[in-house]
Amino acid sequence: MFIHQQKLQYNSSPEKPDAVYARKLQEVIGGQYGEITVAMQYSFQAWNAHIPGKYRDLLFSTAAEEFGHVEMLATMVAQLLEKAPLGITEDAIQDDPAVAAVIGGTDMQQAIVSGAGARPVDSMGNPWTAGYVTASGNLLADMTSNVNAEMQGRIQVARLYHMTDDPGIRDLLSFLLARDTMHQNQWVAAVRELQEDGLEEMPVPSNFPQSKEASEHAYTAYNFSDGQTMDEGTWASGPSPDGKGTFDYQPEPMAGVPMPPPTHPDARFYGTTELPNSVEKAAGTVQDKLNKE
Amino acid sequence: MFIHQQKLQYNSSPEKPDAVYARKLQEVIGGQYGEITVAMQYSFQAWNAHIPGKYRDLLFSTAAEEFGHVEMLATMVAQLLEKAPLGITEDAIQDDPAVAAVIGGTDMQQAIVSGAGARPVDSMGNPWTAGYVTASGNLLADMTSNVNAEMQGRIQVARLYHMTDDPGIRDLLSFLLARDTMHQNQWVAAVRELQEDGLEEMPVPSNFPQSKEASEHAYTAYNFSDGQTMDEGTWASGPSPDGKGTFDYQPEPMAGVPMPPPTHPDARFYGTTELPNSVEKAAGTVQDKLNKE
Amino acid sequence: MFIHQQKLQYNSSPEKPDAVYARKLQEVIGGQYGEITVAMQYSFQAWNAHIPGKYRDLLFSTAAEEFGHVEMLATMVAQLLEKAPLGITEDAIQDDPAVAAVIGGTDMQQAIVSGAGARPVDSMGNPWTAGYVTASGNLLADMTSNVNAEMQGRIQVARLYHMTDDPGIRDLLSFLLARDTMHQNQWVAAVRELQEDGLEEMPVPSNFPQSKEASEHAYTAYNFSDGQTMDEGTWASGPSPDGKGTFDYQPEPMAGVPMPPPTHPDARFYGTTELPNSVEKAAGTVQDKLNKE
Amino acid sequence: MFIHQQKLQYNSSPEKPDAVYARKLQEVIGGQYGEITVAMQYSFQAWNAHIPGKYRDLLFSTAAEEFGHVEMLATMVAQLLEKAPLGITEDAIQDDPAVAAVIGGTDMQQAIVSGAGARPVDSMGNPWTAGYVTASGNLLADMTSNVNAEMQGRIQVARLYHMTDDPGIRDLLSFLLARDTMHQNQWVAAVRELQEDGLEEMPVPSNFPQSKEASEHAYTAYNFSDGQTMDEGTWASGPSPDGKGTFDYQPEPMAGVPMPPPTHPDARFYGTTELPNSVEKAAGTVQDKLNKE
Amino acid sequence: MFIHQQKLQYNSSPEKPDAVYARKLQEVIGGQYGEITVAMQYSFQAWNAHIPGKYRDLLFSTAAEEFGHVEMLATMVAQLLEKAPLGITEDAIQDDPAVAAVIGGTDMQQAIVSGAGARPVDSMGNPWTAGYVTASGNLLADMTSNVNAEMQGRIQVARLYHMTDDPGIRDLLSFLLARDTMHQNQWVAAVRELQEDGLEEMPVPSNFPQSKEASEHAYTAYNFSDGQTMDEGTWASGPSPDGKGTFDYQPEPMAGVPMPPPTHPDARFYGTTELPNSVEKAAGTVQDKLNKE
Amino acid sequence: MFIHQQKLQYNSSPEKPDAVYARKLQEVIGGQYGEITVAMQYSFQAWNAHIPGKYRDLLFSTAAEEFGHVEMLATMVAQLLEKAPLGITEDAIQDDPAVAAVIGGTDMQQAIVSGAGARPVDSMGNPWTAGYVTASGNLLADMTSNVNAEMQGRIQVARLYHMTDDPGIRDLLSFLLARDTMHQNQWVAAVRELQEDGLEEMPVPSNFPQSKEASEHAYTAYNFSDGQTMDEGTWASGPSPDGKGTFDYQPEPMAGVPMPPPTHPDARFYGTTELPNSVEKAAGTVQDKLNKE
Repeated sequence: MFIHQQKLQYNSSPEKPDAVYARKLQEVIGGQYGEITVAMQYSFQAWNAHIPGKYRDLLFSTAAEEFGHVEMLATMVAQLLEKAPLGITEDAIQDDPAVAAVIGGTDMQQAIVSGAGARPVDSMGNPWTAGYVTASGNLLADMTSNVNAEMQGRIQVARLYHMTDDPGIRDLLSFLLARDTMHQNQWVAAVRELQEDGLEEMPVPSNFPQSKEASEHAYTAYNFSDGQTMDEGTWASGPSPDGKGTFDYQPEPMAGVPMPPPTHPDARFYGTTELPNSVEKAAGTVQDKLNKE
Repeated sequence: MFIHQQKLQYNSSPEKPDAVYARKLQEVIGGQYGEITVAMQYSFQAWNAHIPGKYRDLLFSTAAEEFGHVEMLATMVAQLLEKAPLGITEDAIQDDPAVAAVIGGTDMQQAIVSGAGARPVDSMGNPWTAGYVTASGNLLADMTSNVNAEMQGRIQVARLYHMTDDPGIRDLLSFLLARDTMHQNQWVAAVRELQEDGLEEMPVPSNFPQSKEASEHAYTAYNFSDGQTMDEGTWASGPSPDGKGTFDYQPEPMAGVPMPPPTHPDARFYGTTELPNSVEKAAGTVQDKLNKE
Repeated sequence: MFIHQQKLQYNSSPEKPDAVYARKLQEVIGGQYGEITVAMQYSFQAWNAHIPGKYRDLLFSTAAEEFGHVEMLATMVAQLLEKAPLGITEDAIQDDPAVAAVIGGTDMQQAIVSGAGARPVDSMGNPWTAGYVTASGNLLADMTSNVNAEMQGRIQVARLYHMTDDPGIRDLLSFLLARDTMHQNQWVAAVRELQEDGLEEMPVPSNFPQSKEASEHAYTAYNFSDGQTMDEGTWASGPSPDGKGTFDYQPEPMAGVPMPPPTHPDARFYGTTELPNSVEKAAGTVQDKLNKE
Repeated sequence: MFIHQQKLQYNSSPEKPDAVYARKLQEVIGGQYGEITVAMQYSFQAWNAHIPGKYRDLLFSTAAEEFGHVEMLATMVAQLLEKAPLGITEDAIQDDPAVAAVIGGTDMQQAIVSGAGARPVDSMGNPWTAGYVTASGNLLADMTSNVNAEMQGRIQVARLYHMTDDPGIRDLLSFLLARDTMHQNQWVAAVRELQEDGLEEMPVPSNFPQSKEASEHAYTAYNFSDGQTMDEGTWASGPSPDGKGTFDYQPEPMAGVPMPPPTHPDARFYGTTELPNSVEKAAGTVQDKLNKE
Repeated sequence: MFIHQQKLQYNSSPEKPDAVYARKLQEVIGGQYGEITVAMQYSFQAWNAHIPGKYRDLLFSTAAEEFGHVEMLATMVAQLLEKAPLGITEDAIQDDPAVAAVIGGTDMQQAIVSGAGARPVDSMGNPWTAGYVTASGNLLADMTSNVNAEMQGRIQVARLYHMTDDPGIRDLLSFLLARDTMHQNQWVAAVRELQEDGLEEMPVPSNFPQSKEASEHAYTAYNFSDGQTMDEGTWASGPSPDGKGTFDYQPEPMAGVPMPPPTHPDARFYGTTELPNSVEKAAGTVQDKLNKE
Repeated sequence: MFIHQQKLQYNSSPEKPDAVYARKLQEVIGGQYGEITVAMQYSFQAWNAHIPGKYRDLLFSTAAEEFGHVEMLATMVAQLLEKAPLGITEDAIQDDPAVAAVIGGTDMQQAIVSGAGARPVDSMGNPWTAGYVTASGNLLADMTSNVNAEMQGRIQVARLYHMTDDPGIRDLLSFLLARDTMHQNQWVAAVRELQEDGLEEMPVPSNFPQSKEASEHAYTAYNFSDGQTMDEGTWASGPSPDGKGTFDYQPEPMAGVPMPPPTHPDARFYGTTELPNSVEKAAGTVQDKLNKE
């Protein structure tokens, strides 16, 4: 159950309008690694969790916090757009290339569709899609996915920080950066704790019987390119991080096996084959059958 | 530059047709964490890499290997479909509920669209989309994303392993599981090496000046839910994994700040506001302006 | 700011597993008119609202309630899948057409991707997309959109009610139906109140100057088909609902105007035209220019 | 059956080229509430209608009219682009920031892909998707959806009206605004008539037995946020618009019920649980089973 | 301008209900090569055409015809679903695996969303998207695209023909097959006529100056795979179809050139590079700059 | 199996940065007819091919070449962005409208998401989708689709050629144009050869029994529009290109047949019908049944 409070976690007001920046902020609202993604991802991970307790509590809490981040960013976007030129006709605008330039870089749907409001899309206008969400039920995998999301998210906020001088925006971003720092750290801590608690191991999924893998290929770095330095990394020799194997390096791909012969499905799929379309067709067999059916 | 060889890395032939399983395999071809995703992701990470050498060599090599995995799976799918009933009319099929059941579970486009062939879609028929790809130019973030992808991918292959008894399919999956084991390990090794080489640190991005974060919020676990055990994890106290802070726990959300007042953009956006639509409208001001424009 | 509580608004447990029904329920989780849509729609409408007070309070409240509906449905789905056959190999399953039939109708990603958990998708597996959300800043339009959403949503829940006999599922659906009844009524009430308060009128947007419309076409029902009864409705004569016109009926489309001549953009777009590709090309003019560039 | 006539319903020619405006117009061609949406929506509603007569006649007629609106807008876009700079190299363009600004705001695919022509996309370049269409077979719901579509559509056209001074464009928009006025009114009239004819009632679907709802929750406004004025609306007390209940207000959410315990699906889904991964794993039970399988 | 007539081009009624087949028909309604695609594609090609006359007349006519094909198929789908079990509870259904099998294969949204009606989606439930449409303004390219569309479309209808015994369905398909035969032929005829009229030539676009191509690579078949028979085709030697070159065959890829060095963009993008993160960071240069900013 | 080599097929370095052009180039990387499309399309056609030999060899070879084209373009994009202003704050940028204009036209995700790198999207930011791929198993259809793809692709590259003066970019484009010339020619040659080899004929699929078509409609051009010149083409009279019929012209659409009556599905779908909602409802029949269920 979610309860809403009409306040924000942190300050979220710009000093001045900036419609181009309002568009850029959409990336961290509705982009692949925006706040909607993490809010939904942590929610579904919590709902699909198979154990109660500290891990699920952490998921529920962080999910609710992230919905509040969407709210802060949407609030900021609306203010950035409040007094900004958004294509509405004014004499001054038509003659001022700088203003025209600004208009060129705006999210046109922030004007035409939402009337100077935020939208659940990214900075190029792609609607947020649930195809961004990861929730497998395996907590080691999913919390690694969360580390990934917080890393990409923090990179984007850091880049956005350098794209404005507005102290109000920077104040909000400094808060989001701090929370991303916290969340990166918390998921890394959880990833470690899952293993220390004995709940999961590497490789994920850890219960899959090692005997059923083609284990002769499980720790070998085959080189499918012609880079000369691939064997200089720790992935080419020495113990593997999962503690279950020893890395090996092969400068060439595996020898491989011949491709199986092409398939010949039912003639009624009308794929191009030698027999039904040429030889047999001459003989009339397939065609007769098709005609009679 | 890519060169193709007409052989497969490993065996890829089933013992018998199975159209429902052919559909399931689509998940690891064209799904969010299928082989197309990793092939494209590692390719774009390599093309966007800013340093030559072992990390980029590893990306190029693994990308090329993964395109070959797509090929093995597509080859398997075509064989699973070769002799399978795919809705083509036969007297026997119409009367046999078991066969009808199989038809119910097939990917109908494998029959209607590709003529008993593989498709670049997932097991529910969603076309693969580049929205699945992550490539930020920051190698610590991107290789963490790769760990994530290999974990989710290996979980899916492990689940698929238990959904068939066919020794031919299981043989192929045992190879893919082994390569996923390798790739999970290699990206974890690379994540560690990036830090040991001094190229990157936690939190990502490590160069962003810590002084510019709202650091008082950077290591505190606020509880936005009512779970009672959230503070039992290592994320609630003690040193943070990035080595730069100490975790703190607050059983409640931050106090928060009042929301800024709602915005009042230009009347020509026709948003609902008190003034232009009621008071001022009565006075005629806004309406007069709109009329005159 | 959103706060989460680890309880549900209402009972949400089935009596027995049912994987096919778990898939059907996805429609009202992640479909066009599922709970994610209304939760996000009301949230963005609230964030984009230009006046504080009762309308925005209603939006914030209902948005938070709807996120809780997603949670109840996701919880139900996980339980429906807990003991259900999901393609995992068992001797019994292979030989029982009825079970095979069930498998044919399942959401394969509920098994392969989320491990017997709910997903943010619809009943055909399409990921939820923010393209479903409506939030224009105009409250009369947006709350009419909300009436629409609650109507379509309630129809879908009513249909789903008849697709199961499980008392546990029906209990949950009876609650959702009741809340949809409330929400349909509340948005209709709000639509009326906005007009009674003098904030908005029909046609939306009400401020747009009537003088600037081609008013001779604003209240006429032209018949673009050959249906003989189109003029039997109240839309063909009498006063219009907005109180600003009188309906008129024309049994034929408007006379129309000639199409403007086709365009001839720059030759470097290589569109097919008479001149640059034939006459002028013979004369060499365009081609010479292209060659010289 | 559709017949095409090579004329337009109304004038559609601009006075001068304007590539940025050509992009903006795409919103009402291929956007969520553009003309393609209403043309397709009314068509599918007509095809799915279960009664012949005036309602279906109205749907068929309006559908055909809307396809003609797509045509008028596409014709306008091509003319706006005919002489506009679209990125084609010219000395003047490179040095004139105003022209460069224009280029920045164009739809690049109108140049690169369609060669100065219209496209079935919105103003941010998203391809039109049938996910926008609503057609449930229930006419009260569907015609309410049509009211919604015409309201959002008219808002967008009104906003676009203020984004240009071109008399030719404004002339076309004045026609579209008038038709939207008509269509808003006609669907509202139809919504009323359906109820007056006794075909449908509120709440939709009206036939669903009220006795099967959790009727104690059907007319209560629970407050899930902390807004203090939510009870000031007509939705908080008095008779409900459907005439079947009396509104009630609760300043707090419902008490709620405990969440059911997390699920424990088959171990072969590799979800993280206490038992199979820790206790039982120590005992070897699950792992033995997985190994033997 | 489009006018609708309430009749169909051809018979469209099945003998008996068949919900699984109703789903399959969706492919040729709303799939990549379904009737919506060709209707929209020919419409946009006509609107973007730069010359009036026979080619544009052909486009307008065929577009209008194809909208009527959508209508016939939607009408057929509704009838196939009218009496079909769609998951609605009945004692008989629950116990009959054959019926359950049918349910497994249905489009669940045809039941839940459209109430036994057709939808603008394909056979796997993907909404139709304008990403399928091709309209470049170049008639030789576009009409070749039309040949392609009619070929793929006719293959799909032919496959569907073999998936049913229903004489009513087969009657409709026999009409669609005939029209696809006509349309394949007509576009091939148009492709030839465009060249005979001197309007366009191969290669498309024919006006692009041959002197500006890297002509030494314009007629050579390089082999990027290890297939031994690639040079057995007419593409490996002899005159090229455009009449402007002579085919040549190279059994190996081109020699290639070294990759340019990786890029080093601004440090504030936080990409991983050697300098700013290691050497310079040690020296403090970059970090100092970031701190000061 | 794919092997990667760390070199490019051709030069790919610009003379100077150009962020707007970097965005434009995305069209031919990740657009509908970009290099990812052809690489994936030819790959899936090869994997789904039913005969070994020259046609499949050609597919495998060209697929591998096209992946290398993606690489060249991605490399070019990264260099175009390396030194380009991408929104990063600099005093100069803020005050220079020309630079601001450039920023307005950039792909914002090339800055925020990929850190000055290429992305698998088109020039409007739409992620590449596998919905662009065609692979039916019928080689005549598929290779015609390839002709189409190479035509549209070459048009786009030709347009892009005229949008820059940079000799480095133009050098790369001159190579791509040449390869498109080759590939257009090679697929046309293959289309002819398939027919000369007797493997396929027109119309596709050629094996479908002509007797099962409604042959009276197979060669007639009906005019569904009012264009007066449609009969001036070779598609209106004379022998058809498939050699199996004679074209005929009808200036009007076919007479057509009456629409079948609307359907009346189960009342529990809650569609609007005359009987269950009005007459029968008054009689209580349907409602009683719904209540009792």
